[in-house]
Amino acid sequence: MPAREVLNKYTKTLIKRAADVKAIFFDVDGVLTDGKIIYDSEGRELKHFNVKDGQIISHLKNAGVVVGAISGRDSAAVSKRCAELKMDFCHQGILDKAAVFKKLAAYHKLKKKDIIYIGDDINDLGPLKLCGLAICPADAPVYLKKMVDMSTRAKGGEGVLREVADLVLAAKGILAKILKGK
Amino acid sequence: MPAREVLNKYTKTLIKRAADVKAIFFDVDGVLTDGKIIYDSEGRELKHFNVKDGQIISHLKNAGVVVGAISGRDSAAVSKRCAELKMDFCHQGILDKAAVFKKLAAYHKLKKKDIIYIGDDINDLGPLKLCGLAICPADAPVYLKKMVDMSTRAKGGEGVLREVADLVLAAKGILAKILKGK
Amino acid sequence: MPAREVLNKYTKTLIKRAADVKAIFFDVDGVLTDGKIIYDSEGRELKHFNVKDGQIISHLKNAGVVVGAISGRDSAAVSKRCAELKMDFCHQGILDKAAVFKKLAAYHKLKKKDIIYIGDDINDLGPLKLCGLAICPADAPVYLKKMVDMSTRAKGGEGVLREVADLVLAAKGILAKILKGK
Amino acid sequence: MPAREVLNKYTKTLIKRAADVKAIFFDVDGVLTDGKIIYDSEGRELKHFNVKDGQIISHLKNAGVVVGAISGRDSAAVSKRCAELKMDFCHQGILDKAAVFKKLAAYHKLKKKDIIYIGDDINDLGPLKLCGLAICPADAPVYLKKMVDMSTRAKGGEGVLREVADLVLAAKGILAKILKGK
Repeated sequence: MPAREVLNKYTKTLIKRAADVKAIFFDVDGVLTDGKIIYDSEGRELKHFNVKDGQIISHLKNAGVVVGAISGRDSAAVSKRCAELKMDFCHQGILDKAAVFKKLAAYHKLKKKDIIYIGDDINDLGPLKLCGLAICPADAPVYLKKMVDMSTRAKGGEGVLREVADLVLAAKGILAKILKGK
Repeated sequence: MPAREVLNKYTKTLIKRAADVKAIFFDVDGVLTDGKIIYDSEGRELKHFNVKDGQIISHLKNAGVVVGAISGRDSAAVSKRCAELKMDFCHQGILDKAAVFKKLAAYHKLKKKDIIYIGDDINDLGPLKLCGLAICPADAPVYLKKMVDMSTRAKGGEGVLREVADLVLAAKGILAKILKGK
Repeated sequence: MPAREVLNKYTKTLIKRAADVKAIFFDVDGVLTDGKIIYDSEGRELKHFNVKDGQIISHLKNAGVVVGAISGRDSAAVSKRCAELKMDFCHQGILDKAAVFKKLAAYHKLKKKDIIYIGDDINDLGPLKLCGLAICPADAPVYLKKMVDMSTRAKGGEGVLREVADLVLAAKGILAKILKGK
Repeated sequence: MPAREVLNKYTKTLIKRAADVKAIFFDVDGVLTDGKIIYDSEGRELKHFNVKDGQIISHLKNAGVVVGAISGRDSAAVSKRCAELKMDFCHQGILDKAAVFKKLAAYHKLKKKDIIYIGDDINDLGPLKLCGLAICPADAPVYLKKMVDMSTRAKGGEGVLREVADLVLAAKGILAKILKGK
């Protein structure tokens, strides 16, 4: 049962909470990426995403999980990646992430316990406190790691969203079916 | 005998299977690359390949091994790299990798046991089950690693194909000749 | 008290010195970046910065700390990043860093003990000797590490400035307020 | 004596050989870079060099050491970096590296024992056998590491040339003077 391997590192309580999750919201820089801000000498900006995060999103959506980004920065590369992955939303240039989080929860009729939020820095503290399961990457500041429910094994850009998605899909019993090609 | 160093980490059974291999097929993102999907603010996509993988392909071809890529994504950078390395084929934008794998095996008159397939994600499960020796990179998901014959020491983009090519060429007794300049 | 976690790894003496700091000056390549000099085939140069370093600068400035770069190289990407982060200054193409350091200290009316300097190479030895608290990244040459007051846990580009800023803000008692949203 | 730290990890015999060195020749991909071959969707190629390697070259040249690259590939980014660093030569697109090595040794009137060569792959075996001190990066193939005099602690692109240059300059007693600003 390869799908069960995913759950070995989590407590029963956490698996139960993950099984009930209806939405995963996340920051972009430092979560989907390794936090690199890349400029060239002519003003272009580049972003490094990870194919691991992208390939699981269609499975999350098939499972009815709402998936979207809330970013403090604004980047054309992020818009392109979000569109390609058919995320439910991609809000950029957000100064008050808590306010946007509340609106999204209301719009999608989600309660606190329904939502995972993944963030890696001080401007994520608002949504990390408002969500049901607060998660940060392995390389978040030590004080942020003390304030969340769990940190992933992956660092930012190494498949943080994938690790969380695998947990949710395995907890719901869906990952085993995906691996059997059902 | 420096070439023998390569074989120290493998079982006799695996070396025997590698010695009989006539083809190596592989995924691109997460195998030839570290899985990074890189966009710039004007819509360009970049890919990071590894010189280690490239330098061994001419030796594989001299040894009569068929070498080619089956990718789920489509990228001009991949086309350029495949052409430069004179791979036997480079199929991109493939949704059903198992179907393409079967056609390629038939076209090149290859049996199951003749073919190594290297893949790192769920959409590689089809060819990984159809091939004779199923291999994934060190940083593939834990459940994929449970479903293959071996995982490489290298992570995606760190020389995964090189590690497999070194195994095959050493098992066939060809690597020692290459190192002697014969 | 998550903010206190930051101080666990430092001595009382170092924390006291950090609490009195009024300015952080730093080199760019190998400090804000991982030292990569990136060129494309048409002469453009790219730079990789880290979002972790950027997000803390506004908090340093709110705390009245002078923040600026002294770089031996010259790059349009560095100019863009410095402007975006509203640093107090960004001096590039500097051959004699000690001379520039002295002018900046005089202009901002700073004594030796008021200034942290972060550098990673031989051309930083001047300011590293002139400042009150000399810091280098974890991956600086071994002889440079012997000549400074402390080296960070982070390597260049992994959040070196962030680690120093967290130390200064925690030592001043400001980080705890930031984490409480005050 | 910070400069002596550099020599702690080497044997007396190796330090003596390094003290007599008059030239350092090296491969580019996998030595000055981490081996990444980077293409964008419009056919451009990018290269990642390391500021650590660049900053030491002027000190090597002041010490009278001949410094230059022999690369099997051909790239505009490499030409730009070599020119910027004022290397003595930069030969690209070289199929027979041994032949070029011999011509360069004759032109600069260098004996075998005068020359360090740094290479990371099969096409470097020729010059690695012809030079006086054969060096490869930490991440070279295991069989190459068995065939050279030493491998660096740094992987390709992490400052391989810097590590070798520090050894040579420290062995010659020059590094201590550089650190004292003489």
